[in-house]
Amino acid sequence: MSDSSINPSEVDIVIAAINSDLTPFLNEWRPIFSPFHLIIVKDPDMDGELHVPEGFNVDVFTKSDINLMVGSSHSFLFSGYSCRYFGYLVSRKKYIISIDDDCVPAKDNNGHIVDLVAQHIANLKAPATPFFFNTLYDPYRKGADFVRGYPFSLRSGVTCALSCGLWLNLADYDAPTQALKPEQRNSRYVDAVMTVPVRSLMPVSGINIAFDREVVGPTLFPALRLSAEGKIRWETVEDIWSGMCVKVICDHLGIGVKTGIPYVWRKERGDAIESLKKEWEGVKLMEEVVPFFQSVRLPRSAATAEDCVVDMAKAVKEQLGKVDPMFARAGDAMADWVKLWKSVGSSAPEV
Amino acid sequence: MSDSSINPSEVDIVIAAINSDLTPFLNEWRPIFSPFHLIIVKDPDMDGELHVPEGFNVDVFTKSDINLMVGSSHSFLFSGYSCRYFGYLVSRKKYIISIDDDCVPAKDNNGHIVDLVAQHIANLKAPATPFFFNTLYDPYRKGADFVRGYPFSLRSGVTCALSCGLWLNLADYDAPTQALKPEQRNSRYVDAVMTVPVRSLMPVSGINIAFDREVVGPTLFPALRLSAEGKIRWETVEDIWSGMCVKVICDHLGIGVKTGIPYVWRKERGDAIESLKKEWEGVKLMEEVVPFFQSVRLPRSAATAEDCVVDMAKAVKEQLGKVDPMFARAGDAMADWVKLWKSVGSSAPEV
Repeated sequence: MSDSSINPSEVDIVIAAINSDLTPFLNEWRPIFSPFHLIIVKDPDMDGELHVPEGFNVDVFTKSDINLMVGSSHSFLFSGYSCRYFGYLVSRKKYIISIDDDCVPAKDNNGHIVDLVAQHIANLKAPATPFFFNTLYDPYRKGADFVRGYPFSLRSGVTCALSCGLWLNLADYDAPTQALKPEQRNSRYVDAVMTVPVRSLMPVSGINIAFDREVVGPTLFPALRLSAEGKIRWETVEDIWSGMCVKVICDHLGIGVKTGIPYVWRKERGDAIESLKKEWEGVKLMEEVVPFFQSVRLPRSAATAEDCVVDMAKAVKEQLGKVDPMFARAGDAMADWVKLWKSVGSSAPEV
Repeated sequence: MSDSSINPSEVDIVIAAINSDLTPFLNEWRPIFSPFHLIIVKDPDMDGELHVPEGFNVDVFTKSDINLMVGSSHSFLFSGYSCRYFGYLVSRKKYIISIDDDCVPAKDNNGHIVDLVAQHIANLKAPATPFFFNTLYDPYRKGADFVRGYPFSLRSGVTCALSCGLWLNLADYDAPTQALKPEQRNSRYVDAVMTVPVRSLMPVSGINIAFDREVVGPTLFPALRLSAEGKIRWETVEDIWSGMCVKVICDHLGIGVKTGIPYVWRKERGDAIESLKKEWEGVKLMEEVVPFFQSVRLPRSAATAEDCVVDMAKAVKEQLGKVDPMFARAGDAMADWVKLWKSVGSSAPEV
């Protein structure tokens, strides 16, 4: 199943364990994941025992590992969906793929199981084209190319640092949309991947993503936590916030972000009506957040992802901190994250 | 076949007749085109008699009509692929759909014939979302929506003025790409339509497009003519140039441009190796053109498409005119076009 051209020593698959029994999940992914190293991080709020089936090359991290490595003062960062970020912190691989544990492999239009790892890595290894839009989507894909009128000087593209995958069945909608259209399921498999143009923002979902850890690792962090954050995806916005930061930072550094294939099949979870009480907060925040990220500019001196996060954290505190104390805390968390990334990240044992 | 929700009195289908026998072409399109009014413009350089099959509601315009309506001093504008622009000038309908005469209906992934008119009009009637990228493509399409994190304040979208369709089989590549990959055919039907984000430029192909004539009609013009322009699509860039203008003007006016479905099936035509001698000129020009369009800003006073073209023409002459006299001529042609659009356009008889 898995693409033999991928070197497993370059890839970590990070799973945030929100469910205590990962057996059905991992058995479904076995043909695709088995050649690769898995980092499983157990939600520190979860009390039950974690079940991981045999036959995987896996390291499991629990609350005690988190406390040991980052100190108990930082462990609150990694509760719920955010436990994945601990996996990002301890990985030493070039590429990280991160999939929510309520997703299983999807099938393409021909009924073939999608090789999620192969497609994410292909997206990351092929250049991105953020400076001019190619109407035939990814020009590097087999059977495609740049269309007439595409400037030749831009055809070599730039490094791609982030690959955002999509979802069949239960798409990543917010609670109001879910509540309004409870029967809606996404059945359209769009066979395309494309670069999101420079200076165009998008909602990055943490459900199904891959990134080049060496290039943008420090920009994916659990910084914005809703006061009523829950254990349902639509009750979180930490990935949306981090995604805005990544995109602005990639634009600043002249590197690319792609969206499209690979899809995952996302299963049912949660009661949208119940979540509406909590999610409304996240929805309202976006109205403040988007204009900020559309206008923020990083200084020329910010030449690495770490520099960029530090400068972005300052801008967040200065410009958004006065709007809502949640943003001031997010700015602090971003600045702290870079310190954590530098210290714990580089000193943690090889996994 | 055709969508009964479309009012035929709102639509003109414009065909540039490069081939003298339109019989096979129109017979293939008959189920889709027959409810609509057709404007066929015969390439004024074509000597032979034009063959149009029975059973269509059609007006045919020839060289003598062009001379009569715009004067022989302007008729050179409409030679070759550019004859379509005469059709744009004389149309009085809200929407124009324009298809090259080497294209026939395509089939979707389920083997169904694509209703090109219905899809283009649906694209134009549904809002566009240029200010934030929706990862599930067109959020207004049946079965789709805005994903989590998409700002609610942007969910009503803006007017869509231009719908750019795509091509199966022979895609719209340039001559060098065709020459390099003579066997390449596009067989990937990507079932998506999306808004091209604000400030992102794209190569607009004139092969398969539709637009709201009342909103952006004056921005589609035959202004940039290559000195060795031929009768093969990849020997022209007039649509690419005009497309850059449309996109910048739409961005300025806060309206949207979409790309994606509907596809057409494009048949073989031309010898790429032979065309390379000519096309290289167009390819080189893009290197000058793109940075100009990426940086040009229109004054706030430009509040209509016509105003914008006049201001754009000035900027072209001032900033690009010194690079190549071809650009100065293009600037003049743009300014002239607005005059033509206002005079001939509004005084021409209803067709």
